[in-house]
Amino acid sequence: MADPATSLPLTRSSVEAAHALIKPHIHLTPVLTNSTLDALASTPTAPGAAAPKLRLFFKCENLQRIGAFKARGAFHAVKRLLAEPGFLENGGAEKGVITHSSGNHAQALALAAKEHNIKARIVMPSISVPQKIAATQGYGAEVIFSGSTSVEREAVTAKVIAETGARLVPPYDHPDIMLGQGTMGLELQEQVRELQAAAKPGTALKGLNAIITPCGGGGMLSGVALSCEGTGIKVFGSEPSFEGADDAKRGYESGQRVESVKTLTIADGLRTPLGKAPWSVIFERKLVSGMYSVTEEQIVAAMRLVFERMKLVVEPSACVPLAVVLFDEDFRRMVEREAGEEGWDLGIVFSGGNVGADALGRHFGVVKE
Amino acid sequence: MADPATSLPLTRSSVEAAHALIKPHIHLTPVLTNSTLDALASTPTAPGAAAPKLRLFFKCENLQRIGAFKARGAFHAVKRLLAEPGFLENGGAEKGVITHSSGNHAQALALAAKEHNIKARIVMPSISVPQKIAATQGYGAEVIFSGSTSVEREAVTAKVIAETGARLVPPYDHPDIMLGQGTMGLELQEQVRELQAAAKPGTALKGLNAIITPCGGGGMLSGVALSCEGTGIKVFGSEPSFEGADDAKRGYESGQRVESVKTLTIADGLRTPLGKAPWSVIFERKLVSGMYSVTEEQIVAAMRLVFERMKLVVEPSACVPLAVVLFDEDFRRMVEREAGEEGWDLGIVFSGGNVGADALGRHFGVVKE
Repeated sequence: MADPATSLPLTRSSVEAAHALIKPHIHLTPVLTNSTLDALASTPTAPGAAAPKLRLFFKCENLQRIGAFKARGAFHAVKRLLAEPGFLENGGAEKGVITHSSGNHAQALALAAKEHNIKARIVMPSISVPQKIAATQGYGAEVIFSGSTSVEREAVTAKVIAETGARLVPPYDHPDIMLGQGTMGLELQEQVRELQAAAKPGTALKGLNAIITPCGGGGMLSGVALSCEGTGIKVFGSEPSFEGADDAKRGYESGQRVESVKTLTIADGLRTPLGKAPWSVIFERKLVSGMYSVTEEQIVAAMRLVFERMKLVVEPSACVPLAVVLFDEDFRRMVEREAGEEGWDLGIVFSGGNVGADALGRHFGVVKE
Repeated sequence: MADPATSLPLTRSSVEAAHALIKPHIHLTPVLTNSTLDALASTPTAPGAAAPKLRLFFKCENLQRIGAFKARGAFHAVKRLLAEPGFLENGGAEKGVITHSSGNHAQALALAAKEHNIKARIVMPSISVPQKIAATQGYGAEVIFSGSTSVEREAVTAKVIAETGARLVPPYDHPDIMLGQGTMGLELQEQVRELQAAAKPGTALKGLNAIITPCGGGGMLSGVALSCEGTGIKVFGSEPSFEGADDAKRGYESGQRVESVKTLTIADGLRTPLGKAPWSVIFERKLVSGMYSVTEEQIVAAMRLVFERMKLVVEPSACVPLAVVLFDEDFRRMVEREAGEEGWDLGIVFSGGNVGADALGRHFGVVKE
């Protein structure tokens, strides 16, 4: 990873600079609307419950390369490394990049390295599912096995770095990653304006009122918050509540970042605690206006709706913001109060689609056990 | 339905006129690309097999309103009825429209009627699955039950028409439907040019070389063929081969339209024989360059790839063109010959996404039986 001291400042214009760098490598993922889900979101969940008015705009990062938004941060991190003076001259391409991950970040970094002719090494627990190992190798990365605890993984990673000079690319706690993930926010803002213009030609465009994203380590949430700085668009984060996975919410409300989490929520992309750099944007600079959480059942219910009504494959982590919008009374009451009669045009991020048919069947209760 | 004698002529400019009429009511569905599937399509299926070069552009009508392209034809049919002199004055809104269908056309017509404040009646076999009945009623249509043979359904429909003056809107064999479905072809052509321009700014755009669509009754295939007339873009049709479902292919090759088909292919949208009006475009005017077919296993294999690699929910019928592209040696040999070293930019239509989680699980072999 490039030294954070060389990173661009955490501002909206740095997100724009990141977008210019990575644009040729990523998909401009579509923004979809769905009148059935608008109607559902605008209907009280029970008599007397909140009645917000919501028009939803879904940013489909499940249709991003490697099936998740992580491609954005990984491409940006690699681009920034390449721009570091002396990187290539000092054998940077052969030394390459390294990370420990068995999820979307592993595949994203493998792809970004491959497209820039840089070596990638990915440290994965030896008990990882064979498909994930194969997928990462399929992008040309060298997979190095470790034990499954974070201590074991970090030890192996440190050893490989010492031996090879590979540069560590962490999954979220770095400005280059945050700025890369934030690029989806710029696209979403512009795409919504285009949709509004097409729907009502000649009227003044109001753009989005707010965006809600999932929050794991906080790379995406903080990046999207930066992409909205100064625009008047409010940004919210969402988490599972299962076994304390709502660490960012608890930290945000208590004023103290929660540094460790141990949860087996089905939203497996959101099991990590909030990183320090994302925290500085989300909490210290207050670029995020609030955090909300939902149960496992609410996540599955949202996932089924997306499957059946939107015809999209989304992983559990990706459904957390929609679950908040549809089912969390705190969020819905807040929107009713803030948005009033006019309601809100709300952006919702579908962060990824990497869930197998078997896992989906299990979640929906239709699978052979 | 409007009298076919009042329909616009079957030309590309009539498809453009249809597009202008329905545009405010339909989604401009995204066109996606996928480098993994490009690589797969460009790799021989076995040593010595054909080696076409293919760059694929997927038109995602599974993301269309009601989850399928049928919304296009239904909105166009209703718009044309409304434009018929005296329609509203003679009580057309109350008499309304009627069709017999238990599939996507039923929901499409129900939605189009609802958005134009016209009554819709849908004749469905009383043994239809409850979800389909509920979905159609959910769009505000009156569902009328019949026996399950086509003779029984048509008898009930004729009786209701005699009693109410409702206008029949057939699912495919009518110029208004064909022109409506063809609008996806115009969008696809334009969207591919935009993607090409974004990928290589400043170079001359070549647009698509060819498009392949599913073929059931032929409304979509003939409409897309009309949208390509005079553009130099070749159009191909695709069918399941199971139990003679490849009626259009057999008719195309023998020169004689096959008028009846009895098949239980999993591609349930493609069980119908080719209609007379579509035949005139596809075969008599030779606006379609060839027909291809695939097995049930090939359809399921394509569906799994779309689920896993593209993160899209697609119904079996929608996967037939991709199955041809990936697995049918006749098609692949033809592309290798015609496209040569340069290869083809090929449009592929994903026609719909209306498949339940249970059915998908069954197809993928992960479901409880």
